[in-house]
Amino acid sequence: MDTKAAANQHATEHSLPDMVAVLSRTPPALNAFLRDLPDVWTRRNEDGDTWSVFDVIGHLVCGERVDWMPRAKIILQFGETRVFDPFDRLAQRRESEGKSLHQLLDEFGSLRAANLDELRGFNLTPEDLRRRGRHPALGAVTLSQLLATWAAHDLTHLHQISRIMAHQCRAAVGPWSDYLGVLRCEGHSS
Amino acid sequence: MDTKAAANQHATEHSLPDMVAVLSRTPPALNAFLRDLPDVWTRRNEDGDTWSVFDVIGHLVCGERVDWMPRAKIILQFGETRVFDPFDRLAQRRESEGKSLHQLLDEFGSLRAANLDELRGFNLTPEDLRRRGRHPALGAVTLSQLLATWAAHDLTHLHQISRIMAHQCRAAVGPWSDYLGVLRCEGHSS
Repeated sequence: MDTKAAANQHATEHSLPDMVAVLSRTPPALNAFLRDLPDVWTRRNEDGDTWSVFDVIGHLVCGERVDWMPRAKIILQFGETRVFDPFDRLAQRRESEGKSLHQLLDEFGSLRAANLDELRGFNLTPEDLRRRGRHPALGAVTLSQLLATWAAHDLTHLHQISRIMAHQCRAAVGPWSDYLGVLRCEGHSS
Repeated sequence: MDTKAAANQHATEHSLPDMVAVLSRTPPALNAFLRDLPDVWTRRNEDGDTWSVFDVIGHLVCGERVDWMPRAKIILQFGETRVFDPFDRLAQRRESEGKSLHQLLDEFGSLRAANLDELRGFNLTPEDLRRRGRHPALGAVTLSQLLATWAAHDLTHLHQISRIMAHQCRAAVGPWSDYLGVLRCEGHSS
């Protein structure tokens, strides 16, 4: 294996502790940032059918329940022979109903901690991380890619949360809006 | 005053507690997210001359020292008769030299807390918040706009931090990169 291939292998396969480092920090960070924030920041969206911060946290809770770890287990148990169940990106509309942001932050924290405990218990080897599963739309994906995406998915929603919140003070910043990149972000989601 | 004007006044002038709610939470949130993260997340940038997470925290520290509160005091003392001192967006290259991320996070937390204590001590009235100062490039701005921009500036850098970190796992997520909006964000800063 040449140096570049070795570096790529490092980037795609041996970064499990790096991914877990992010995954374990997201719930306490969101808790420190969002708990008891006035509703103006957490219940308003970016107009139309977009999500509020409350919706985003509900989505993260759903991911902990039915997306990341169930898919990791499908890869480990069935490899490519069993396609992942599709993930309902709107499930939180139903699941979060009647809950407070406090409750969702608590649920996210405890579900994430339990999932990471279970993940650590798997004692994944480099060979495990190279195992492939089958995504219903993307086709073959490795366990390593799934786990990196779990962390990157946290980051994409932190990105979204900062943008939703910035939208709420768009008028209040007056002429400074030209200097604030987050106010020009259009989300990039398909 | 008609209803719309009243709503606008609310959005631009009476939201000081909302702004302080964000400003007070940013340091503990960044601390929970970034402290002791592996360097792969905090010391790498988005290629070329872009900033690392370490650079961003250094920039936030500089803002606490020489930007936000000094400008608020200029408005309160001199109104539009004294133009703000320009803010050096690259000062952290010098100021952060030899420091650890721990140190920068600690400095950011203690400077922000002291600044917010001082701000609360001003007991700002709606009339104070309408006072105008003069920005070297943007012209007339109000104290209220300055304080909202302080909070929105935190949000723009949270947005940037999530994007810098996501960039580090661009290769590791494999085909999922198409689904992660943060990986398509180009920053929007001028």
